[in-house]
Amino acid sequence: MRAVDVIMHKRGGAELAREEIAFMVEGYVAGTIPEYQVSAWLMAIFFKGMSPRETADLTELMLHSGDVMKLAGLKGPFVDKHSTGGVGDKVSLILAPIVAACGVQVPMMSGRALGHTGGTLDKLESIPGYKTGLTETQFRDFIAADGFAMTGQTATIVPADKKLYALRDVTATVESIPLITASILSKKVAEGAEALVFDVKTGPGAFMKTLADSEALARSLVNTGTAMGKRIVGVITDMTEPLGRMVGNFFEVEESLDCLEGKGPADLMEVTLRLSAWMLVAGGVAKTVEEGIAKCEAALATGRPRELFLANVKRQGGDIDKMLQLRGTYRSAHTRKLGAKDSGFITGIDAYKIGLAGVYLGVGRDKTTDPVYPDVGFIFHRKVGDAVKAGDLVAEVYGKDEASLEAAQSLIESALAIGPAKAPARPLIVKEITAL
Amino acid sequence: MRAVDVIMHKRGGAELAREEIAFMVEGYVAGTIPEYQVSAWLMAIFFKGMSPRETADLTELMLHSGDVMKLAGLKGPFVDKHSTGGVGDKVSLILAPIVAACGVQVPMMSGRALGHTGGTLDKLESIPGYKTGLTETQFRDFIAADGFAMTGQTATIVPADKKLYALRDVTATVESIPLITASILSKKVAEGAEALVFDVKTGPGAFMKTLADSEALARSLVNTGTAMGKRIVGVITDMTEPLGRMVGNFFEVEESLDCLEGKGPADLMEVTLRLSAWMLVAGGVAKTVEEGIAKCEAALATGRPRELFLANVKRQGGDIDKMLQLRGTYRSAHTRKLGAKDSGFITGIDAYKIGLAGVYLGVGRDKTTDPVYPDVGFIFHRKVGDAVKAGDLVAEVYGKDEASLEAAQSLIESALAIGPAKAPARPLIVKEITAL
Repeated sequence: MRAVDVIMHKRGGAELAREEIAFMVEGYVAGTIPEYQVSAWLMAIFFKGMSPRETADLTELMLHSGDVMKLAGLKGPFVDKHSTGGVGDKVSLILAPIVAACGVQVPMMSGRALGHTGGTLDKLESIPGYKTGLTETQFRDFIAADGFAMTGQTATIVPADKKLYALRDVTATVESIPLITASILSKKVAEGAEALVFDVKTGPGAFMKTLADSEALARSLVNTGTAMGKRIVGVITDMTEPLGRMVGNFFEVEESLDCLEGKGPADLMEVTLRLSAWMLVAGGVAKTVEEGIAKCEAALATGRPRELFLANVKRQGGDIDKMLQLRGTYRSAHTRKLGAKDSGFITGIDAYKIGLAGVYLGVGRDKTTDPVYPDVGFIFHRKVGDAVKAGDLVAEVYGKDEASLEAAQSLIESALAIGPAKAPARPLIVKEITAL
Repeated sequence: MRAVDVIMHKRGGAELAREEIAFMVEGYVAGTIPEYQVSAWLMAIFFKGMSPRETADLTELMLHSGDVMKLAGLKGPFVDKHSTGGVGDKVSLILAPIVAACGVQVPMMSGRALGHTGGTLDKLESIPGYKTGLTETQFRDFIAADGFAMTGQTATIVPADKKLYALRDVTATVESIPLITASILSKKVAEGAEALVFDVKTGPGAFMKTLADSEALARSLVNTGTAMGKRIVGVITDMTEPLGRMVGNFFEVEESLDCLEGKGPADLMEVTLRLSAWMLVAGGVAKTVEEGIAKCEAALATGRPRELFLANVKRQGGDIDKMLQLRGTYRSAHTRKLGAKDSGFITGIDAYKIGLAGVYLGVGRDKTTDPVYPDVGFIFHRKVGDAVKAGDLVAEVYGKDEASLEAAQSLIESALAIGPAKAPARPLIVKEITAL
């Protein structure tokens, strides 16, 4: 077999044989197929797509390029949630202990902030002492103890994705549904989940800006995961304005605690409960999503999810006392207040612009090597639909230094839209796709 | 500027700015843009194409990546012909001295056999002593002396094409009209031609199998060359059966001599005279192609083209006496006769299969490093349209050894079709495209 022939087959729109996909993936990981052939192949896939069978084969081959977490022996069911990334999206921190409190185990492997989107690992690491680089043994033990654990992707998990993603990033081949599907799904299956709930964000602040693209990705994830024998739910949720009232690393830990204490903002709670409920359904602990929501609300009322969250913080090295003490006070000295320029209603807070401004402030990063800061970000006092008078405080903005505030200022101002009439409310749960 | 952005622009179907194309081509030649980005870009061009303006920019940028032959000071006009490659296509050897005899100078840079197609340099080098690697000074001096010279591409001519072509070859990005156009045209302009006639072959034995593809390439060559200020003619000629009666390196030198002596086969002479005549028109020596043909026929009748051919052989190191002495006898001892299996008419001799069989025999090569042989190939005693009786000799086949004959046997047999009725004659000159 020759790589050039596999590229030519895909270029012509053929459905590749599993052997052809294996030849490319294994050859690339082994270093026998050069990057220039792989990148041409990826671009051909970008244009010609992959069938569900090809996508499942690619996912499995990537999965088996490295280690697969062995959770067998632990008491399941094991269900994880994955979000395609958004602004203010701290759902994982709230959902994992809720779901664990309901008897579903959550082996959660998360990522870091990149571009305008935040990262769960960065948020958790803003808790003093918290460590996210768990060993496989720690991961197993912590799940056994608290029902969930939070870790980063280890070096031995899906090495094919690490190489392929780095190559896609520099060859303009990121935005391909089958390649995105295989990248996400191979990592999630490798962490040991039996069932998965995908939060596919849609809108200006999401990776997929249009509903059509978001739905195509959700369907691909559901179909491919189902073909691999996993139970999969795809939930498309709106990412037009930031989720919740806080954006920032420690800021989002604070808001997660609020949620676990029953004081969370409505939009964030709605998305969190819906995704949590689907995890219970996927894990066989609830029959319907409505039953799942009722169970999650009942669990929250007992205070058990908050206890599990604190237990996890402690177990992963975090200082609970210090965390609780910093709550409400861990704020950079470099701050500005954003006032309403007109009277009327907030008609838009552009999540994408807020996310990009967050990169200036120190919430997120442009390059994987940039540092992020715990005590910077946004606190929104008004959200879309709220009435304002000119001069009212809309948001507090915290930056790593004065220059960062200066740099972000016009972007933040342009993110905020005020109009004379209240805009109709956007549904947060846009569409649900399931093969259950 | 970032390469990934240029790739993304082209991926999205944008017309690239000249600066973007320059960034990629110059960066690749300089080694600052890695091959994996260039190959992804090439695949995006394969799918999204290039406008005439982009193609002209790419051609000029490739052209200026290296030296351009300086023929100024010599007496013009300088016109060259380029064929996209075929089987039995020895037109260059006959056409160059005919055109030179009519007062048009031919600075001819040719290529080698690759895959099923033959190469002018390999044919010329089958003449004992003949050297094709001329210095620029030799090239100029030989043109000044005989009106034409035959050389290979020097290392300093269009280095961008050498790198790009090698990359396209292994990344399935060869078959792109703008990339083919830029590759051909940059080299032809670099050799110093002011006007060019392109013989775009069409049919099973051609690089472009369909008339639509052949016409698209011809139009692209004419439009791009015209945009660069050159006079260009594109002639689409049929490559369904091999051209002429002989296929092989020295075999084709023999047939070229036959043509120069007025004894050439009709199909080969028709194509040669038509292309020669267009060169006279492009060079301003004839007003119409009909006048051009008349001039070429008149020149042939004087014997001057044969004299110029012999003068060139001698000037490029060839041994004229030995060449003439080998004529009709330079035949490998490993030979087979191919007889007609049925009575009827020859309805097809598949040029592609004959070309591929030629690779086994030693006429051509699979890899650029394979050797080729002078005394192997085919002599056809019957061609398409000829009547045969079962057992009649259709062709003599010569191979480098018995194993090569064995390996080629079934391919050669399958190339030959005999039917009960004479097939309608195919026009050799299929279409002519000119911006003159």
